[in-house]
Amino acid sequence: MDNSHVSLVALSLASDCFEKFHCDRNVSLGLDLKSLGKVLKCANSDDAVTIKAVDRPEKITLSFESDGKERTADYELKLLNLDQDHMEIPKKDYTCYIQLPSSEFARICRDMSMFDESLTIACSSKGIRFSAKGDLGTANIQLNAGTAMDVSIEVQEPVTQSFAGRYLNTFTKATPLADRVKLYLSEERPLLVEYPIEDYGHIRYYLAPKVNEPDF
Amino acid sequence: MDNSHVSLVALSLASDCFEKFHCDRNVSLGLDLKSLGKVLKCANSDDAVTIKAVDRPEKITLSFESDGKERTADYELKLLNLDQDHMEIPKKDYTCYIQLPSSEFARICRDMSMFDESLTIACSSKGIRFSAKGDLGTANIQLNAGTAMDVSIEVQEPVTQSFAGRYLNTFTKATPLADRVKLYLSEERPLLVEYPIEDYGHIRYYLAPKVNEPDF
Amino acid sequence: MDNSHVSLVALSLASDCFEKFHCDRNVSLGLDLKSLGKVLKCANSDDAVTIKAVDRPEKITLSFESDGKERTADYELKLLNLDQDHMEIPKKDYTCYIQLPSSEFARICRDMSMFDESLTIACSSKGIRFSAKGDLGTANIQLNAGTAMDVSIEVQEPVTQSFAGRYLNTFTKATPLADRVKLYLSEERPLLVEYPIEDYGHIRYYLAPKVNEPDF
Repeated sequence: MDNSHVSLVALSLASDCFEKFHCDRNVSLGLDLKSLGKVLKCANSDDAVTIKAVDRPEKITLSFESDGKERTADYELKLLNLDQDHMEIPKKDYTCYIQLPSSEFARICRDMSMFDESLTIACSSKGIRFSAKGDLGTANIQLNAGTAMDVSIEVQEPVTQSFAGRYLNTFTKATPLADRVKLYLSEERPLLVEYPIEDYGHIRYYLAPKVNEPDF
Repeated sequence: MDNSHVSLVALSLASDCFEKFHCDRNVSLGLDLKSLGKVLKCANSDDAVTIKAVDRPEKITLSFESDGKERTADYELKLLNLDQDHMEIPKKDYTCYIQLPSSEFARICRDMSMFDESLTIACSSKGIRFSAKGDLGTANIQLNAGTAMDVSIEVQEPVTQSFAGRYLNTFTKATPLADRVKLYLSEERPLLVEYPIEDYGHIRYYLAPKVNEPDF
Repeated sequence: MDNSHVSLVALSLASDCFEKFHCDRNVSLGLDLKSLGKVLKCANSDDAVTIKAVDRPEKITLSFESDGKERTADYELKLLNLDQDHMEIPKKDYTCYIQLPSSEFARICRDMSMFDESLTIACSSKGIRFSAKGDLGTANIQLNAGTAMDVSIEVQEPVTQSFAGRYLNTFTKATPLADRVKLYLSEERPLLVEYPIEDYGHIRYYLAPKVNEPDF
């Protein structure tokens, strides 16, 4: 969850996506994401990667081994003591469910953010409409369900909500992970943006809607 | 025309380069180039693009439609009220006319600008010579008419003039538009740098020469 | 040699790597490297390059000629008066000699510098070990002699020394010049990093070890 409590990200990987997976007891590891990213960049693409932590851990060890073990690299990262409570994210029913190419969603978020810092998403049985209005002028992109771009839209109840574009642009950094993205919307509920990661898991982003209504 | 009234750019596209072209009356539209650029970047490469303005317009509408209209995007841009007088650029006779590869011209402008902010062009029946002299040292590039690089030079009267390199380097951003560039020079007349755009039109840059004579 | 007298670079090219080489008397030319780099970038990849200096020179001339001389470019660079004494670098015997892929060495220097500004190299008959320890955590990379990565290690006496990573990262800019890099180490002697340049010569970097012992 970000500091302003507006957005939240959850990555889930099933145990069967690892070659070996051993865990005696549920354990929470508080990691500095920036440091973790730095260390993971030190792995070669064909290295065997081992991640280890003991019970009641104070650090995590990442080992990268080349084929034949001619090169072995070990990295130890200190763990953070995360005070924050466990986040329960109830997977409630949403009234709008859209699937579209993740590259298209990334493009729309980028294009809209040139016009305004807010982006309005209006979802109805007719289609999904993204709008922004700023000093430059106005922008509207309308997507209809169809086969050419393979957009699917399921709507029980129409929804119109505004969101901060800079969060959405951050979420779309996950675009290379998945060909398609799923959007879930309901009135007065955080937007859920979900990128599936093959059959192994998913990365989910939640974003609170802007409170003040859009003026158009 | 830039603020210091030193350079001027004119882009011309014939009506037959558009699939549909309809214009009842001559009309001038004052557009903010930066905003227009932003909007045009929002088009997909295979979109059908429609540009519309009403009579006595206050805004211009750009519409991008995907094949099958599964995706439609509309952008409205406010127009600027440009007070400036209509620019008449008389296409007079020039005494020197050079054609050369546009990439070669871009390269020369870039190389020369490492030496000095001014670039001297000397054109004679022998060839064209670009010179710069600065703290670093001196630089001279001589091009002769020939077939290997396909440089053609027509000179009625030799010309030597100095120009500000940073304008020329701005002009050469048009290099990807055309394989070849045309240079027109006459004593005490602005340099004309012309990039043809296929058979549809051209982009022309005009640049006033520097008044103080070069000291070499 | 850099201003803090910690590192030194020497590039050597044998006379037979030039098509023509003529030199009547030994002469030292003091060149500003940044200016020389700028001028060399002005050469086309298939140009004939001529470098000239007279006896007791005040400037150096670089000429680039295209095939058929349709394009000729001349650059004159002023020479610097370098007061500094001639550097004698005695090629003494080193007690450790390592050969490894230059890309692997570049990668290790880059990875280690994320952890600390110092990098410790420990070389023994078992292999070569690079270590860094900082706020993020600790990092250790161990390379063993072998055929997969083609690492060769010759050790007369084990050596452990620490070096400033930012110098090493500067040295590894030479990586594209050579597939393999040679490291020479001896206790209390500057590290020698040598990149061979085909059969023509080499570029050698020398780096003084850090005086304070590493604390791990």
